[in-house]
Amino acid sequence: MKSLVIDTPSSNSTIYCGNGAFAERTAALAQKKLFIVTDSNVFRLYKAHIQGAFGNAPMYILPAGEHSKNYSQLLKILSAMLSAGVTRSYTVVAFGGGVVGDIAGLAASLYMRGVNLVQIPTTLLAQVDSSVGGKTAVDFKGVKNIIGAFYQPSEVIVDPLFLRTLPRREIRCGLGEIIKYGALDAEIYKKLKNNSNALFSEEFIEGITYDCIVHKAAVVCADERDTGGRRKTLNLGHTTGHAFELYYKRKSHGEFVLIGMYYEIFIAKQLGQCDVDYAESLVKLIKKVLPSIPAYADAQKAALFAKYDKKNTRTSLISLIVPKCEGESVEITLPAERYCALIAQCAEQLDQRRK
Amino acid sequence: MKSLVIDTPSSNSTIYCGNGAFAERTAALAQKKLFIVTDSNVFRLYKAHIQGAFGNAPMYILPAGEHSKNYSQLLKILSAMLSAGVTRSYTVVAFGGGVVGDIAGLAASLYMRGVNLVQIPTTLLAQVDSSVGGKTAVDFKGVKNIIGAFYQPSEVIVDPLFLRTLPRREIRCGLGEIIKYGALDAEIYKKLKNNSNALFSEEFIEGITYDCIVHKAAVVCADERDTGGRRKTLNLGHTTGHAFELYYKRKSHGEFVLIGMYYEIFIAKQLGQCDVDYAESLVKLIKKVLPSIPAYADAQKAALFAKYDKKNTRTSLISLIVPKCEGESVEITLPAERYCALIAQCAEQLDQRRK
Repeated sequence: MKSLVIDTPSSNSTIYCGNGAFAERTAALAQKKLFIVTDSNVFRLYKAHIQGAFGNAPMYILPAGEHSKNYSQLLKILSAMLSAGVTRSYTVVAFGGGVVGDIAGLAASLYMRGVNLVQIPTTLLAQVDSSVGGKTAVDFKGVKNIIGAFYQPSEVIVDPLFLRTLPRREIRCGLGEIIKYGALDAEIYKKLKNNSNALFSEEFIEGITYDCIVHKAAVVCADERDTGGRRKTLNLGHTTGHAFELYYKRKSHGEFVLIGMYYEIFIAKQLGQCDVDYAESLVKLIKKVLPSIPAYADAQKAALFAKYDKKNTRTSLISLIVPKCEGESVEITLPAERYCALIAQCAEQLDQRRK
Repeated sequence: MKSLVIDTPSSNSTIYCGNGAFAERTAALAQKKLFIVTDSNVFRLYKAHIQGAFGNAPMYILPAGEHSKNYSQLLKILSAMLSAGVTRSYTVVAFGGGVVGDIAGLAASLYMRGVNLVQIPTTLLAQVDSSVGGKTAVDFKGVKNIIGAFYQPSEVIVDPLFLRTLPRREIRCGLGEIIKYGALDAEIYKKLKNNSNALFSEEFIEGITYDCIVHKAAVVCADERDTGGRRKTLNLGHTTGHAFELYYKRKSHGEFVLIGMYYEIFIAKQLGQCDVDYAESLVKLIKKVLPSIPAYADAQKAALFAKYDKKNTRTSLISLIVPKCEGESVEITLPAERYCALIAQCAEQLDQRRK
């Protein structure tokens, strides 16, 4: 088990990562007063682990799925905490994937203006990305993550134990974020390239997870509240990914990040912002994980949803973080119309190749 | 106009205090993109000021009153912000009393994980206490301030201009908190004692307001998130005050703080924790502001609600901050039963004196 500390202005967060992390750290947690938040899937799969580690601690079980990430479920968690008599000396344990981490984190930040929070991510996407860094949120009125808080967990327990039950699609989603880190970090990029035929292997994933967390930790230390520009780089692929996610809904977040990266790399190439060979190599990695990138017929319309991205403070302009060369990214800002036209052009090219 | 900076771990907050503060600071704000939150009373009284200072900025008007401090109004504010196209580059202006400041502050902290916040308190209570220090909240399921956040306003504009329209009862409420500061701060105590016949005068209030803010600023700097004990001292009178407020509802917060202080000073005397002459002198000040302290018949039952106070992490024990001697307070912790019995004893004594 490795550990690393994220030292942010608001507080410290320790990440414990590796085999045995769950058993070791939950033994320490057993001394505390706990309130558990999980979802129906995770509870079904890990009932024995939950009961073994947390005994009779009060618990709220969210209905599994992205649709649970709303204020109504948030209020139900807060209400359950109140009924259980949770006080400021309690710790909220978020045991599950990204949805559980985001909503339980927000509940912990709001209850009595903040109680201690421990994140135990059980999906690859949550392990490499969402559980680290203190972003919490729910969706509201069709806009993703519009109600939220920056709230650091006191610890994050990342144990590959939970990845063994994950369907291949969930691993793919996590790899979406991992490839994003590859497009930002030369070391991660090299490892991805050198293992491009073993991306789904347990061993590779365990190693690269820690590397991604190390990268994210450095970014979060430098720019906790996403104001200095550094944290914005983590949005690579996400502006377009989120727009498609809002419009098409069917796929999951990690898949949309892969698709968003593909479309944004196309834009970066068209605008001469990304080295062509490097772009080609990133696209190859993306296709190893998601072989078929959708050629959306109404991509131009879907792209309009990028206006709702929190990063875009003026709705007439769209900002994107795109890869430039190994270990370097660049922010490009373009008129919304031009952005939508380029997205449509990318979709057309995908469509023609398919024919 | 005086100004002072509260430098907390999370961010800086500047308080502008005195005649002319509103005109001067809102002129500077006019350059920014604003979203205004106010209530129906304040809007009626200050429509011209609002339109003069903020032009056509989008606005949400809360129904006036303590009952508006709930999650349903919070969601309506967030929804109005979304409809108005508010982005991260906006500033939320909370223009009103404590309810407006608490709920608008929470909305600003949650929208896109936090947009800039300016507090313009228009009641004495909000000016001397609630607008400063970053505590935001709504009530939930009958528990006060149970959902909230610590979120510093970038600036607080404290102008006595708004006190002129306040009914005497509102001034009384503010004086409740001011006397609390007197019980914590020897300088403020002296000024209160020396002006005990002029407590309601405009001139006295203007001077003492700044003194209270200076006291609070020092406390908030030392203990922003209310974890180190220092900020807890500001809770003097509030444990019992909140319990009565929950049970009896009829009066307003500042009045309950006065009543809470009276009952808690009685307990401090009974337990030999407070100098007797000093206690007498504080009680005299309290009675200058609220001549008739209620002799609650079911005080013992009402006192049970103190268990719900956020400060009480174990429900079998009640913690109180009580005055000890000039400029000094002390925390006492006693079994809930003993606490309730002492509250009942105080109510009986009040009742006998009346007969």
